[in-house]
Amino acid sequence: MTATSLLDAIAGVGRDTARGGYSRHGFDTVEMELREWFIAEAFDRGLEVETDRNGNIWAWWGTPGPDAVCTGSHLDSVPGGGAFDGPLGVACALEAVDLLRGQGFQPTRPVAIIVFAEEEGGRFGVPCLGSRLITGAIDPDKARRLTDSDGTTFADAVAKAGFDPARIGADPQALERIGVFVELHVEQGRDLEVPVGVATSILAHGRWRFSFTGEGNHAGTTLLTDRRDPMLPAAQLVLAARQAAASVQGSRATVGRLRPIPGGTNVIASTVDAWLDARSATDAETKAVVADVVARATEAAEAEGVRLTVTEESYGDTVWFDAQLAAQVSQWLGGVPALPTGAGHDAGILAAHVPTAMLFVRNPTGISHAPAEHAEPADCEEGARALATTLAKLAG
Amino acid sequence: MTATSLLDAIAGVGRDTARGGYSRHGFDTVEMELREWFIAEAFDRGLEVETDRNGNIWAWWGTPGPDAVCTGSHLDSVPGGGAFDGPLGVACALEAVDLLRGQGFQPTRPVAIIVFAEEEGGRFGVPCLGSRLITGAIDPDKARRLTDSDGTTFADAVAKAGFDPARIGADPQALERIGVFVELHVEQGRDLEVPVGVATSILAHGRWRFSFTGEGNHAGTTLLTDRRDPMLPAAQLVLAARQAAASVQGSRATVGRLRPIPGGTNVIASTVDAWLDARSATDAETKAVVADVVARATEAAEAEGVRLTVTEESYGDTVWFDAQLAAQVSQWLGGVPALPTGAGHDAGILAAHVPTAMLFVRNPTGISHAPAEHAEPADCEEGARALATTLAKLAG
Repeated sequence: MTATSLLDAIAGVGRDTARGGYSRHGFDTVEMELREWFIAEAFDRGLEVETDRNGNIWAWWGTPGPDAVCTGSHLDSVPGGGAFDGPLGVACALEAVDLLRGQGFQPTRPVAIIVFAEEEGGRFGVPCLGSRLITGAIDPDKARRLTDSDGTTFADAVAKAGFDPARIGADPQALERIGVFVELHVEQGRDLEVPVGVATSILAHGRWRFSFTGEGNHAGTTLLTDRRDPMLPAAQLVLAARQAAASVQGSRATVGRLRPIPGGTNVIASTVDAWLDARSATDAETKAVVADVVARATEAAEAEGVRLTVTEESYGDTVWFDAQLAAQVSQWLGGVPALPTGAGHDAGILAAHVPTAMLFVRNPTGISHAPAEHAEPADCEEGARALATTLAKLAG
Repeated sequence: MTATSLLDAIAGVGRDTARGGYSRHGFDTVEMELREWFIAEAFDRGLEVETDRNGNIWAWWGTPGPDAVCTGSHLDSVPGGGAFDGPLGVACALEAVDLLRGQGFQPTRPVAIIVFAEEEGGRFGVPCLGSRLITGAIDPDKARRLTDSDGTTFADAVAKAGFDPARIGADPQALERIGVFVELHVEQGRDLEVPVGVATSILAHGRWRFSFTGEGNHAGTTLLTDRRDPMLPAAQLVLAARQAAASVQGSRATVGRLRPIPGGTNVIASTVDAWLDARSATDAETKAVVADVVARATEAAEAEGVRLTVTEESYGDTVWFDAQLAAQVSQWLGGVPALPTGAGHDAGILAAHVPTAMLFVRNPTGISHAPAEHAEPADCEEGARALATTLAKLAG
């Protein structure tokens, strides 16, 4: 079955009529439906399915064990995201198994498809939560306390999904079975001009929550001089993010999420929460951009008599994928180009522990994390074939 | 029964655990519960209750008819609002009836307590919706099409509450019965230094929706030069509002509500909706402030390649309450001070049609539209007694 027809089968799941595109978040009813879909597809192929202590699903071709050749991605999305970011890697993995079986290929190493939980952090704020947990990159106590916008904790969400929240956290037994990991993903910029490429690196990136606390009051009766309005420094934060990023070559800094409380038209907000997403080529550059933004926001908050607290919600240093493996994969695929990316991935978390590579499928417009995200069916097929070739070389 | 004990009875209804304070919005389950409470209190006093075609409740002491002396306010709140804005006027009206009956007062004109629907516009965006509808100040077709944040139309909400949405709109028969209207309200600034005062005027004020449309994309992979990020001009709008208001003496301009879509941390927003609340002493000043803000926001939007549409959601020219009536009321109350207000009220809508006055009860901190909104019980009692005195003078 082609990756495109697999994606077609879930095209109706989790559509966001308000935002457009899809809203599929870790352990919500929609993502649980996608998990069931994946498990059914794995069963259809006679794969052995297990879900680890952190809610990541493993589908095994061959006996589960060490030195496995693993691939996979995630099924969740950002709010109002596209159809490809995540599911394409899962669909191509299923198709790759079909293609290899069609060729009569017999793996000499176990092969597994892994579906990671809450990769986008769209619900609980921390991206790559499933891979962070399994690798011990996040303290399970901190993870249990994460809350979604309805106030549900990650612990409660995990429990509702049927897992024991007391057992989440580093899982070296599960992790040690991964001999090599290859994630296929739709490219998210406009840098790939052929159907398939391989990744060199991921920008150093993180998320910071800026919480501005002023004084809620009536928008009509409160004199300007009596105000402590947190919207003003929050607005300065938005502008500072762009200015700071523009001053460091190749950097990006974005405020895409901002929430005034209470959020009434005729009410001066009491609190504004805003999130900064910042990424640069190196750790030092990213931290310099963030320090610049924090300084400007702090100054703006003080000028308005507003209290500011800044919390780092996640951070990842620059990831350099295994250069030898990337060169080898590129060669197996006829010399496809290698390129860096600004997007975080579970592969970026795993890269600190196991040899890891990524395949990218061309994105004609560069649009991602939005309803218009797209990849041509022919490019998706070329991606699935490239993944099959790579798995065969690794597991043959 | 005192106004304070009446408010105590509804202190548990509509608490907003996320924002603090109360969220009570027109025709939602919470406001419907408050309506039932008011109707029960009216029945307990033997008042004749009717609900007009626009969902405003009338409780009559004496035979409903023309030349009535009317008082009242509203039961809805802003999101996360205080306990006094609205309900204090209703509670003092009930207490005033009790006080007058305790004195053996027999009205020679009918007396009515009116509870107006959706005064804050916290659900459907247009403030004073009940009084605008009854006076014909809003087109009923426009009102029917208003939607709340869940996409429910005002027509559907009205129907669900048991009214016929086809029958909303100007109701001269109901309106003509009002001979005079006196609204008691908690003061919303810090200008009243004694327990009770009377209103002179309401600032010219309105609400404008700024809708910025750019291009949703990935916050990590999209180069700064490729972006059309609507958050940037929205941030400039926030700052422009403050600057424009500061340049016109006594003006206020506020952005307290701002919503990026989709609102993901790692997503450049595709659209940002932000609402401007602007108020000045005169129509010309208010319009000058808004024109200044629109010009600055338009320039910022163009600089980022973002499309901007501005929609006036509501507007009211400066309201001058009946000066002779205000002077008379002040005199009856022993010469209490007269003061203007920046806040809109149903009394401001009615003032164009019938002689109208307002009584204010002191607000020790000036905080309003926020959980900390407060009035001392002794001041509330003085307010209720002042309202009783006023009603007795008018209906005696």
